[in-house]
Amino acid sequence: MIIVNTGNGKGKTTAAIGQVVRALGHNLKVCIIQLFKSSEFYGEQNILRNLEGLDFFYFAKEHPYFNHNLSLNVVLEQCLEALDKIREILKDNKKYDLIVLEEFNVALRDKFIDVNIFLKLIEELSCNSNIIVTGRGAPTQLIEVADLVTEMKEVKHPYSVGAKVQKGIEY
Amino acid sequence: MIIVNTGNGKGKTTAAIGQVVRALGHNLKVCIIQLFKSSEFYGEQNILRNLEGLDFFYFAKEHPYFNHNLSLNVVLEQCLEALDKIREILKDNKKYDLIVLEEFNVALRDKFIDVNIFLKLIEELSCNSNIIVTGRGAPTQLIEVADLVTEMKEVKHPYSVGAKVQKGIEY
Repeated sequence: MIIVNTGNGKGKTTAAIGQVVRALGHNLKVCIIQLFKSSEFYGEQNILRNLEGLDFFYFAKEHPYFNHNLSLNVVLEQCLEALDKIREILKDNKKYDLIVLEEFNVALRDKFIDVNIFLKLIEELSCNSNIIVTGRGAPTQLIEVADLVTEMKEVKHPYSVGAKVQKGIEY
Repeated sequence: MIIVNTGNGKGKTTAAIGQVVRALGHNLKVCIIQLFKSSEFYGEQNILRNLEGLDFFYFAKEHPYFNHNLSLNVVLEQCLEALDKIREILKDNKKYDLIVLEEFNVALRDKFIDVNIFLKLIEELSCNSNIIVTGRGAPTQLIEVADLVTEMKEVKHPYSVGAKVQKGIEY
């Protein structure tokens, strides 16, 4: 099954993390491939790296939107490394019950990853595993092939009235 | 801060669980008070009960929608016990950084919990803690007082085409 968490609201990543915890609680094998998230920053990373049954990979820790000095070519290369990791999983025939592709929607939206190449890979992956793809701006082609799509829709957000990001909530 | 996860889509509970894991990863103190979820069923419960810094309480394990033999009065009483747990937290001045009130929106919608009593309690709770209230059908009064509201909106769901619930995904 291919699952997509998208939309402008909160909960895309945390819902995927909750899903990972749910799957691990049933002793399933889980893999997270994460883009655009510094490994020292997010609280969940401290817990997840100690859980059994979970393989956790990071690529392209920063997005050019937040670091304007970042070379687009470097980000592009790092995203291609993430795709290579997916190919490696397919080649090794490594059995994961659940594979979370964190923020890949953003990489697709920003053309760091080609949508057709990606769709081919995840259709193949989804023969053996459930796949969750997160991030705002999921491309229409992905929504078309997905089985379960949720839009996390912002109804009200304190950022809009000037609130600051909070440890344990936003990161 | 009062946070609400509502809507007809997937991800309300899993996003709260992800939030719990994020907070615990920063060594914050977390409490979950859960309604309408059998403690033997959901995978995340097996992981969460072993994490340090988390207190986990269950009340009203079944909802009458899923068990028609259930007495409404019994459910009502169990929901009132859940409110008493909140009062106990307030009285003991127990410091939680994050309190998750799982499926309380459903209890409010179905009148097992009075919305005015609930709002008074969580406004008091939110002086010391971030609060997340989950469940479909969040009442308008709760949305009004909340700081952050996300609607998990179903764009596409395999149930609608007859798919079965899957271990590690739905539970």
